[in-house]
Amino acid sequence: MNQQTRVGDLGERTLIERLRSRIPPGEGVVVGLGDDAAAVVTAGLTLVTADCLVEGVHFRRPFTPPRLLGRKALSVNLSDIAAMGGVSRYAIVSLCLPSDLPLDFLDGLYDGLLERAGETGVSLVGGNLSSASGGMVIDLTLLGSGEPRLLRSRARSQDLVVVTGRLGAAGAGLRYLEEGFRIDEAGSLLGGPALPAGEALSVAGAIRAHLDPAPPLWFGAAVAAEGLAACGMDLSDGLSGDLLTVCRESGVSAVLDSRALPIDAGAARLGEPVARELALHAGEDYQLLLGVAPDRLAALRALAGRLGVELGVIGHFEPGPAEVLVQDGEDRCALAPRAHQHFRDSLSERGARRA
Amino acid sequence: MNQQTRVGDLGERTLIERLRSRIPPGEGVVVGLGDDAAAVVTAGLTLVTADCLVEGVHFRRPFTPPRLLGRKALSVNLSDIAAMGGVSRYAIVSLCLPSDLPLDFLDGLYDGLLERAGETGVSLVGGNLSSASGGMVIDLTLLGSGEPRLLRSRARSQDLVVVTGRLGAAGAGLRYLEEGFRIDEAGSLLGGPALPAGEALSVAGAIRAHLDPAPPLWFGAAVAAEGLAACGMDLSDGLSGDLLTVCRESGVSAVLDSRALPIDAGAARLGEPVARELALHAGEDYQLLLGVAPDRLAALRALAGRLGVELGVIGHFEPGPAEVLVQDGEDRCALAPRAHQHFRDSLSERGARRA
Repeated sequence: MNQQTRVGDLGERTLIERLRSRIPPGEGVVVGLGDDAAAVVTAGLTLVTADCLVEGVHFRRPFTPPRLLGRKALSVNLSDIAAMGGVSRYAIVSLCLPSDLPLDFLDGLYDGLLERAGETGVSLVGGNLSSASGGMVIDLTLLGSGEPRLLRSRARSQDLVVVTGRLGAAGAGLRYLEEGFRIDEAGSLLGGPALPAGEALSVAGAIRAHLDPAPPLWFGAAVAAEGLAACGMDLSDGLSGDLLTVCRESGVSAVLDSRALPIDAGAARLGEPVARELALHAGEDYQLLLGVAPDRLAALRALAGRLGVELGVIGHFEPGPAEVLVQDGEDRCALAPRAHQHFRDSLSERGARRA
Repeated sequence: MNQQTRVGDLGERTLIERLRSRIPPGEGVVVGLGDDAAAVVTAGLTLVTADCLVEGVHFRRPFTPPRLLGRKALSVNLSDIAAMGGVSRYAIVSLCLPSDLPLDFLDGLYDGLLERAGETGVSLVGGNLSSASGGMVIDLTLLGSGEPRLLRSRARSQDLVVVTGRLGAAGAGLRYLEEGFRIDEAGSLLGGPALPAGEALSVAGAIRAHLDPAPPLWFGAAVAAEGLAACGMDLSDGLSGDLLTVCRESGVSAVLDSRALPIDAGAARLGEPVARELALHAGEDYQLLLGVAPDRLAALRALAGRLGVELGVIGHFEPGPAEVLVQDGEDRCALAPRAHQHFRDSLSERGARRA
C-alpha cells in the first residue's frame, strides 16, 4: 500500500475488511458490520435522516482535506437530528467511489468519520460500498433517539425568529477556497496572500465552517427538554429559503430585522453587500433556527449562556401568507428565496455558494 | 409537464413537493417527510441496512423500465432484512439525479417504489434529493423490526447448505437483455427473436428476475420463528462468494454437490457450462442461503411447502478452512470465488453479470 495505491487496486472485499477492522464496537450495537443488516438497540421512537455529499456538487476534492470531508458527512446529519431535539446514535454509510480514488483519501475520509463519531457518541453500524459511475458519493443515514420536539410546523404568530451562532461563515469559506486559500486538516491557513493575524483567523474560521461545520448539537435537545421552543430547523440551504420553509409548514409570515443578522467575521471581511447576501442566502451554516415565544426568551438566553451558545434574535413571525419580509427602518420588502436548490441553480450560481 | 420535461427544468423544492404529495401516511410514522428528520415507532431492537443502485454499475437505463427499477431499489434491501429473520418497516431514499433525467423516469421510479412499499407494508419516511455529477444513484436505507436470528456466523459443521428458489435467473436475464430482449413493465417479452411460448416465458422470467427480483420475504422470519435455522444470508453477489462469506464468518468449509444446484429455466436454456456458471457466480438472485441442522430439514421442508417456497439442499458444511469445495462424484475441487466484487471486476466482467 504505497501512496499511489488506488481503491480500484483492491477488491471490494479487501476494502470492506479494511474499513470494518477500524470500526470499534459501539454501545447498543447487537450486530454491527458484516451481516445482511445491523441490529441496534432502540427506544419506542427513532429519529431518522439521510443526507449525502456528492463530488462536484457539494464538494470539490482539491479544496477538501479528506478527514474534514468525513467529519462533514456525519455533521450535516448530526445537525438534522439535533434540530429535532434528538440525540444521534447510529450511522449507516453508503459510499460510491471512483476506482481511481487514492486509497489515502478513503482512509482519511474514515479517519474523519470515526473521529467525529467518537466525539458525538455515534456508532457506525453498517453501510455499502460500490464503484461510482461519476464522482464520489457519500450518503449517510443517521438514527437518533428522542421525541420529535422541534418541528418546522410549530412557529406561531408573535414568536421570535432566533438563530444560534453567526451566519454566512460557510458561504464566505467557499469564496476564500475559490480565491486560492486553503486550510490543513488542523484548520490552519495554507496558501493565499499573507494576511494580518486577525484576518487570517477569520478567513481560516470561515473555511473551516465550510469544510467542517460545527452545529450546536446539544442545544436543540436542551431547548426541547426545557420546553423553551417547539419550532426548530437547521440552516442548511440558507436562511432565506429555510425560514420560508418554516413559514410554509407553519402557515405564517416572517419579518426579519435586516440590522440584527449576526454576521460571521470571515463573511464581514468581504464587506457589504456580500456579507449580508451570504448570511441570508449562502447556506451550509448548520446553525439552528428557532421559533421562540417572547416570554421564553429570557430563559432561552440563560440556557444559551450556560451552554456557551451565541443567540441572535433576528425577527418575528406574523399572521399572513408564507413569505419572508425584510424590515429596514420603516420599509418592508419581500425577500426572494435564493437559498440553494438542486437542479434550479446553475453550476456557477451553485459554485458561488456550495462547492 | 410534457413528455420532454427533465428534472432539471424543475427546482429541488418543486420536485420534493411532487414526491412528498404521493407518499401516503404510514403506520408507525409520527413525523414523515418534510422535517429535519423523520420520527418512527420502533421496538427495542431495530434492524438496519443500506444498499444502492448506481447507473452504469448496477443498471443501465435503456434496459430498465423505471417502475421496475423503483421496485428493485426497495427489494434488494427487503432481501437483507428478510435474511436476518426480520420484518421491514421504514425506508429512507436518497436520490442523486442527473439534471437531464426525464421527469417521466423519476415518476416511474416512484411508482415502483411506492407499489413495492405498499405490497410489503413499508413506509417511505424520508430521504434526500441531490443533483448528480455522473449517473443516477439510488441509495435506500431500510429499517426493520425483529431479533437478528439468522446470522452469517452461525453455520455449524454438518449443517446442510440449503437455498430457496432457483439460481442463475438474474444472471441469465442480464445476458438476454444484452442480446436485445426486453420486457415491458408488466413483465411481457418485447423485442428479440421470436421464440416458442415456453421459451419466451423462461426468457421473460429471467429478465424479470434481474430487473425486479422477488426475494422470499416472509420465509426468513418464519424459519427463525420456528427455530429451523440460525444461519442465513441473502444471495446478492453470487453463491460462490456468498457461501465463502458464510464459511469465513462461521469458521467452516462448505462442500457443494455440483449436481444438486437448482438451475433457473431461463439460465438452463443457455446450456452448459453457462447455466452452471451463472448459478454459481452471477449473483443478484436474492434467494436465501441457509445453514440447516440435518434433524431440522423435514420441518423446514414442511414449512416451505406451506409457504410455497422451493427448497434445494445443495451441500453441507464441514470442519476446515474457510473455502468452498465442489464435489463431483468422487472428486473434490476448491471453487475460486468469482462472485461480483466492486473495483475488482473489470467492466466487461461486471457487464457479464451485473448491469
